[in-house]
Amino acid sequence: MGSSPVTLPFPSLIPVDKSSGVPVYLQIANGLIQQIRRGILQPAAKLPGTRAMAEALGVHRKTAVAAFEELHAQGWIESLPSKGTFVSRVMPEASPQKLDQPATTQHPAQTGFALRGNAHTSQPLVLYNGMLGFNDGFPDERLAPMEEIARTYRAIVKRSSARAYLSYVDTQGNPHLRSELSAHLNLTRGLHTSPDNLLLTRGSQMGIYLTAQVLIAPGDRVVVGDTNYFTADMTFRHAGANLVRVPVDDWGLSVNHVREVCQRQRIRAVFVTSHHHHPTTVTLCAERRIRLLSLAEEYGFAIVEDDYDYDFHYNSSPILPLLSADTKGMVIYIGSLSKAIAPAVRLGYVVAPPNLIREAAQLRRIIDRQGDAVMEQAIAELMHEGAIKRHLKKALRTYHQRRDFFCERLREKLGNEIDFKTPDGGMAIWAKFDPRIDLVKLSEKALQQKLHLSNGLRYNPEGQRLNATRMGFASLTLPEIEQSIDRLKKIMMN
Amino acid sequence: MGSSPVTLPFPSLIPVDKSSGVPVYLQIANGLIQQIRRGILQPAAKLPGTRAMAEALGVHRKTAVAAFEELHAQGWIESLPSKGTFVSRVMPEASPQKLDQPATTQHPAQTGFALRGNAHTSQPLVLYNGMLGFNDGFPDERLAPMEEIARTYRAIVKRSSARAYLSYVDTQGNPHLRSELSAHLNLTRGLHTSPDNLLLTRGSQMGIYLTAQVLIAPGDRVVVGDTNYFTADMTFRHAGANLVRVPVDDWGLSVNHVREVCQRQRIRAVFVTSHHHHPTTVTLCAERRIRLLSLAEEYGFAIVEDDYDYDFHYNSSPILPLLSADTKGMVIYIGSLSKAIAPAVRLGYVVAPPNLIREAAQLRRIIDRQGDAVMEQAIAELMHEGAIKRHLKKALRTYHQRRDFFCERLREKLGNEIDFKTPDGGMAIWAKFDPRIDLVKLSEKALQQKLHLSNGLRYNPEGQRLNATRMGFASLTLPEIEQSIDRLKKIMMN
Repeated sequence: MGSSPVTLPFPSLIPVDKSSGVPVYLQIANGLIQQIRRGILQPAAKLPGTRAMAEALGVHRKTAVAAFEELHAQGWIESLPSKGTFVSRVMPEASPQKLDQPATTQHPAQTGFALRGNAHTSQPLVLYNGMLGFNDGFPDERLAPMEEIARTYRAIVKRSSARAYLSYVDTQGNPHLRSELSAHLNLTRGLHTSPDNLLLTRGSQMGIYLTAQVLIAPGDRVVVGDTNYFTADMTFRHAGANLVRVPVDDWGLSVNHVREVCQRQRIRAVFVTSHHHHPTTVTLCAERRIRLLSLAEEYGFAIVEDDYDYDFHYNSSPILPLLSADTKGMVIYIGSLSKAIAPAVRLGYVVAPPNLIREAAQLRRIIDRQGDAVMEQAIAELMHEGAIKRHLKKALRTYHQRRDFFCERLREKLGNEIDFKTPDGGMAIWAKFDPRIDLVKLSEKALQQKLHLSNGLRYNPEGQRLNATRMGFASLTLPEIEQSIDRLKKIMMN
Repeated sequence: MGSSPVTLPFPSLIPVDKSSGVPVYLQIANGLIQQIRRGILQPAAKLPGTRAMAEALGVHRKTAVAAFEELHAQGWIESLPSKGTFVSRVMPEASPQKLDQPATTQHPAQTGFALRGNAHTSQPLVLYNGMLGFNDGFPDERLAPMEEIARTYRAIVKRSSARAYLSYVDTQGNPHLRSELSAHLNLTRGLHTSPDNLLLTRGSQMGIYLTAQVLIAPGDRVVVGDTNYFTADMTFRHAGANLVRVPVDDWGLSVNHVREVCQRQRIRAVFVTSHHHHPTTVTLCAERRIRLLSLAEEYGFAIVEDDYDYDFHYNSSPILPLLSADTKGMVIYIGSLSKAIAPAVRLGYVVAPPNLIREAAQLRRIIDRQGDAVMEQAIAELMHEGAIKRHLKKALRTYHQRRDFFCERLREKLGNEIDFKTPDGGMAIWAKFDPRIDLVKLSEKALQQKLHLSNGLRYNPEGQRLNATRMGFASLTLPEIEQSIDRLKKIMMN
C-alpha cells in the first residue's frame, strides 16, 4: 500500500520499433509480458503510471494507456482504485505440469505401431505451381473474382446477423446457396432440383468420396472407362470396390460393353464424366446417355455422373446431363464450383434424391462436420447479384480464346509429333505422342528445363503405355502458351 | 451496312431502379440480355449509340457506356469500327441439347437403388442456434476475431503473391501455418514437433476421421470410456472398429481396466480426451498418463489423444499432453483451432510421426483434396503477430468468469436438483439430475418453452440411463446465464 513503483531501465528492456508492422502499444504490452514471464517484474509489483511509462519510452501517453488496457484485458496487470497498477498476483498463464518421464528433445521419427496401409491412395502428389507448362486442366486462378468474394466475406462477418454463420450450422450446407444453386442448375442444365436434393461439399472430390462411401460395400463392382479419372479410381477402391473396365471411344464410354458386363455379373454403379471424359476429353453422345439410363433401370445400378466442367463448352451446344432425363432416381450428379471459380474456393455439390442426400450428409458430419458457412453465404450472395455468372461468362470467353490459340500453335509447331483433337470444351487436350518419342523421358528432360509436362503414366490403363498425356491450356495466357510450346519444341528437337 | 438502329421502347423494356442494390449499369446490361434471349433483339440487330440509350433511359452516358462494356465482355454485343454496335451473331450462350426422353418435371423422390446403409452415422443432428439454453460446450462465436480474420483474408487475396494460395496446394496444409502452429504447440504443451509432424485438417473431427481410417481395419478393437465422445464412437465404428469400454472415474479413464483388456485380447488403439474427458469433464491424472504410455509401448497399441480444449483451463495448471512424454511414437495427437476461434473457421490438426502424417495426407487428398489455403495463411499471419494469442487470452478470461458465475448461480438456484462439480476448465459442466426428475421429459418441456437442454441420451453408455447431461456455459453472457437458469428453474418447478 502506498509503495513506490518499481524502477527498471524500461527503455532498454522494451525496445520500441516504430517502423515495425506491430502497433507500438502491442510492442510495449508484449515487452512487459516478457519481463513478467522472466520474473524481472514480480507478481504484485507496482508499475509506473502511464504518464511516466510514456515518458520513459518516448511514446504518446495514449499509447501507454492502450498498452496497459491490453495487459489488463489479458489479465497480466490489475488496478486498485487510488492505489495504482500492479502486476497480477495470479498469473493468467499457469505453467503446465510436466509428466514425470525422461525428457525428450525431438518428436519420434516413426510410429511405434504399424499403419493399416492403403495402396489405393498412395500415389504421391507433386505440385508444379509457378512453373511454366501444362497441367491436368486447371482453371486460371488469376481470373477468379477473389476480391469480390473476400469483400463479401468481410461484409457478412461485420453484420449483426453474422452469428448465424459463425457457429455450428447445417451439415447439408447453407440454405441460401443451396437455393441459388438449385435455381442455377435447373436453368442451365434442364434439372428439376430443389434445395433438398443438394448437399454442398468441399469441391467435387468430397462429392465422389461421400457417394462411394454411401454406395459401395467391399467387393461391389463399379464400371469405369479403360482410361478414367484416376482420383475416382482411388476413391472407389478405397471404399472396397472392384473396378470393371470398359472401352472408351470417340463417343464416350461404350454402353454396349456395359450391357455385356451386366449380363455376366451384378454391377453396383457406373462412373461417367459425361461432358468431357477424363482424361481423353470426348463427350458421351446423347444416344448413349439414354441407353445407359435404360440399362441402369433394367439392372438396378447407380450412375455416378461427374460433371466437373459443364460450364466450359466452346463449339457445339452442350448435351444435357443424364440426370435431366432421370425419372427413376438412378443418377447421382456431382458438380463443382472450384473449377468455375478457383481451386482455393473448395465448393462442390452432390445432387440426388433426399434419401441419399441425408445419408451422405450424416457421413459428412463425422468427416468434416460442416462447410465454411460464411464462404457459402458469400458465394450465394454473389450468385444472386450475378457476379458469379459474369465471371463464368468472362472465363468462358478467355478459355475459348486460349483453346483456339493453343491448338493452332501446337498443330503448327508440333503437329507431326503430337496427335490431338481440338476438344469441344474443357480445359485440356488429350495429346498422343509419336511412338518414337518416349514421353516419360521427355517429361524428365522438360522438368530439368523448368517445364512441366506430365509423363502421362497416371492416365494409362493398367498394364498399357499409351504414350499420351493431358495438356492443360486454360491457366496459361497467350504469351505463356507461346512460350511453353516453344520451350517444349526446343526440348523435343534437342 | 449503314443501317439504322432498332427502335424499341427501351424505357418500358428495361426498367431502371436506382434504389435497388444492383448497380444501374448492370440493370441495363441484364435488361438488354433478357431482350436478346427473348428474341426481341435479334442477332446482328444494330443498337442505338450509348448517348441515345442514355437519354432514352434517363441515365448518365457513362452508365450506358459501362453497360455496353459489360455486354461486350460477356459476348452479347460486338462493335464494328465506324459501323456501330450490334447484337452478336453468335450467342455466348449455346442452348443445350435435350435428351430424347419423356419430359420430367420433378426430381425423383427416392433413389432407384438401395444404399449401403450405415447405422453408425445415423444419429440425427438438430441445431438450436439462436435459442436460449445450454449446448454441448460451444465457444462464443461473438468473441471471435472474425473481422481481423476477414481483413487479413482480403489483404492476402489482393497481394500479387496471392496466386500461391489460390490454386492447388499442399494437401498437408499451408507451410507457414504448420510452422507457426508447431512453435505454438512446443511452447505451450511441451511438445517437440516440426512442421513435418503436422497435418492441418478441417477441425478436429477430420483429424479423428483420418486417424481412424489409417489405423483401423474392420474388426480391430478400440478402447474407449464407458461414457465417451459420441462422435468419436461413430467415427471408429464407421471405420469398422469394435469398441471395448472401460470405466471412467474422477481421475479419467481407468488404466487398470485397460491393462486387463490388453491381457485378454489384442487392442489396436485407446481413445482419450485427456484434458477434459467428454462428456464428464474429468482430467486424466498425470500418473495414469504415464502408465497408459507404458502400456501402449508394452502392448503396441496406439493412443489417440483428442485434446480439443487444452486452451481452456481456469484453476490448476494443466497437465502436459501424453504426447509430451512419448518417445516411442505411440501417440497420435489431435487438436482444434475451431474451438479456440469459432466453429466457422474449420481448422484442426493431427500431430504424429511423419509416416502417419503422410498416409493421412494421402487419404485426405481423396476426401477433400486440400484445405482453405488463404484462410490458413490468414491464421498463420494472425498467429505470428499475436492476434490469435490475444484472442485466446481474452476468451479464457471471459469463459473463466462465466464458469464461476454459472456454477454459483446453478448451485444457488438448482443445487438440490442438479449435482455437478465445478470443472477445472473447458466449456461445459457434467450435470447429474436428481433421479426423481426425468431428464428426457424435462428436455421436451424446456423445448416447448424455447429453452435448449439436451436430454443427455447421446451421452449415455449403451443400455444405461445416467439421467445426466452436459450444460455448456461458455457461449452465454452473464445475463444469458441468469436468464437460462431462471427459465430452467421455472420449468422444473412447474
